[in-house]
Amino acid sequence: MTRGSRSERAASLDEADPLTTFRHRFVRADDVVAYLDGNSLGRPLAETSARLARFVGETWGGRLIRGWDEGWMEEPVRLGDELGRVVLGAGPGQTVVGDSTSVLLYKAVRAAVALAPSRTEVVFAAGDFPTDRFVLQGVAAELGLTLVPIETPHDGGVDPDRVAAAVGPDTAAVVLSHVAYRSAFVTDVAAATAAAHAAGAAVVWDLSHSVGALPVHLDDWDVDLAVGCSYKYLSGGPGAPAFLFARRDLLPRLHQPIQGWMGADQPFAMGERYAPDPGIRRFLSGTPSIVAMRPIRDMLEVIDEAGVDAIRAKSERLTAFAVELVDELLTPLGVRLASPRDPAMRGSHVTTDHAAFPAMLPALHRDGIVPDFRRPDGLRLGLAPLSTSFAEVEAGVLAIRDALRRTG
Amino acid sequence: MTRGSRSERAASLDEADPLTTFRHRFVRADDVVAYLDGNSLGRPLAETSARLARFVGETWGGRLIRGWDEGWMEEPVRLGDELGRVVLGAGPGQTVVGDSTSVLLYKAVRAAVALAPSRTEVVFAAGDFPTDRFVLQGVAAELGLTLVPIETPHDGGVDPDRVAAAVGPDTAAVVLSHVAYRSAFVTDVAAATAAAHAAGAAVVWDLSHSVGALPVHLDDWDVDLAVGCSYKYLSGGPGAPAFLFARRDLLPRLHQPIQGWMGADQPFAMGERYAPDPGIRRFLSGTPSIVAMRPIRDMLEVIDEAGVDAIRAKSERLTAFAVELVDELLTPLGVRLASPRDPAMRGSHVTTDHAAFPAMLPALHRDGIVPDFRRPDGLRLGLAPLSTSFAEVEAGVLAIRDALRRTG
Repeated sequence: MTRGSRSERAASLDEADPLTTFRHRFVRADDVVAYLDGNSLGRPLAETSARLARFVGETWGGRLIRGWDEGWMEEPVRLGDELGRVVLGAGPGQTVVGDSTSVLLYKAVRAAVALAPSRTEVVFAAGDFPTDRFVLQGVAAELGLTLVPIETPHDGGVDPDRVAAAVGPDTAAVVLSHVAYRSAFVTDVAAATAAAHAAGAAVVWDLSHSVGALPVHLDDWDVDLAVGCSYKYLSGGPGAPAFLFARRDLLPRLHQPIQGWMGADQPFAMGERYAPDPGIRRFLSGTPSIVAMRPIRDMLEVIDEAGVDAIRAKSERLTAFAVELVDELLTPLGVRLASPRDPAMRGSHVTTDHAAFPAMLPALHRDGIVPDFRRPDGLRLGLAPLSTSFAEVEAGVLAIRDALRRTG
Repeated sequence: MTRGSRSERAASLDEADPLTTFRHRFVRADDVVAYLDGNSLGRPLAETSARLARFVGETWGGRLIRGWDEGWMEEPVRLGDELGRVVLGAGPGQTVVGDSTSVLLYKAVRAAVALAPSRTEVVFAAGDFPTDRFVLQGVAAELGLTLVPIETPHDGGVDPDRVAAAVGPDTAAVVLSHVAYRSAFVTDVAAATAAAHAAGAAVVWDLSHSVGALPVHLDDWDVDLAVGCSYKYLSGGPGAPAFLFARRDLLPRLHQPIQGWMGADQPFAMGERYAPDPGIRRFLSGTPSIVAMRPIRDMLEVIDEAGVDAIRAKSERLTAFAVELVDELLTPLGVRLASPRDPAMRGSHVTTDHAAFPAMLPALHRDGIVPDFRRPDGLRLGLAPLSTSFAEVEAGVLAIRDALRRTG
């Protein structure tokens, strides 16, 4: 394909995109031609800037301490319920916002393994994101549990068959990611959960790389516990608070060890002994940041308006276009596609490997192309469906091609 | 004193106050005559509103993922060092910002008791803030430790003598608050720390009710670990991230159980095994909220400009004026002062008890008087030195007097 006809193709895809106008709601960076890292840090919505300023001046500054009685106290659960409704497929009273993903994962895993104190093993994916593995190593060390890795040929992705093969009567919990952080391989959550349940084990899912880009149906999938971050496709901002989901019928039996007042049954009773809230609030500990939750709320409104199914459809078109361009422009130069070819098995990013990539990053940044880098030599093209255009995908892959040619 | 001469007194105190102009840097709430709860939630600085908006639009939106390489990655420690320099009396490399106070207290206590695995007791103040007691109950339950309470006749405050009497060869750690949340009683940190050290125990201080209002000298006081919140006198906003301090020479031996990637030696190595950062970063777990840290930074600049000693001097004058007015106006109506009379033993709030207080709160709020309420029947007048005027103190106590008269 010639450069001209390719650009026409990108332009016509953008024109035909039913979500194309959503792009203009996000802040644009002047020096960025193609932002391909929305899966690491989502662009902010333009309205978030003014809304946050108003929150400081009018709500925090105007309502002061009264704000806690006027909504902030409920905000971690109210926002959790909204996450449940809009992006998690979870009924109310099962999701709470606060802490970081790592801290919530720690709480979720501690709660999960405590359900079966006589079981001694935790099954996990060998290629999972470091923080997931590190948290598990810490929990295993303090509780004397054995970690059982599932091999992950798909660069971190897990087949449900391998879950079934790894679990057994000693398995207390299975901890997995819905979408693999490196390859974007999508694990079948329902099937993997069923495999864990068949062995009597609880499951904890990390949704960090799927939430907001792929449909999630936690209730239908019979998931026990899940956590996820909000600064990727949920545009919560750098280090925005994470969320935790716990199945309603399990809640009374779930106990996490960080007993803070915000998770107590009656926070203002100032009582003698800690008694956990009967519901999902028991997963809170200290006071969660209300300021940091505001951008998530803004983005959820926009996702709700667009609809997760439409977002997923665009995500598949974006990654398919990226794969097509990789095949045409990069494979001849020795680049290897590290993501699944089947769009149904692929999340919202496309990873390609080449030994020359690490050295190329500064030049790409200078040209306004911002992909993500993952060791040892992967460029991860994160395509945030609501803010990324087909033209950006094209500009990004072309720039990578040109940079590779220069190095070669 | 007549109402007129009393008002003249308040006005002349405000006029003579060397910090009087600082008040105008904070957002004013139109319907609030006297905000006496800056010790629960500090007023925002007016400039924080615009700065936060600019951060979203220009830094998050403009720099996008590049922001992590351009300062965000270092921000938890950079801001920690600033806290150390301006308000904690701590040299660099010992303070980090992130998580909530409860989560950081959990980490600090777990790290402290792990220093002496053969010791079986944790000493704490019976009247301490619930989250402190609750966190300790959780740690004690999971590790099989015994909690040893120190009685607190001063409504939560602790005499160093009682610490010396409570510690022994089985004491792993002593966990105390610098300023008692209810009475504002100030504990002598250096003396209590020395008493703990004499028994070979580590100390963990909660500075939530002192930081930003009282001088703190963690290095000089030989403190092992400390935590504190930033939404009171540090004006960080509702649920702003907390801080943790750990003594430099102890750091290599301190281990906390929530092993996330942000606390790892090389976060982007994506390695097989977790190895903690050699320094204070080992107390981080997940990605801390950069957005939520910004207001703290703004307030630290202002505190640095005013100087902690000048702030403490005004705090003493404010609480002395409050005590004087309580004596004159409220004691005759049966109100009991629950805070120390000696300004040196008193933090920056004044608590008064009366059985009629709980029922009076709505009327006070309607009149624009916003004090804090603490069970069973305490009105806590929090006097944030940089944002509270003597006129506010007077208006508050007069309104309480009037409300009491109406009920009586």
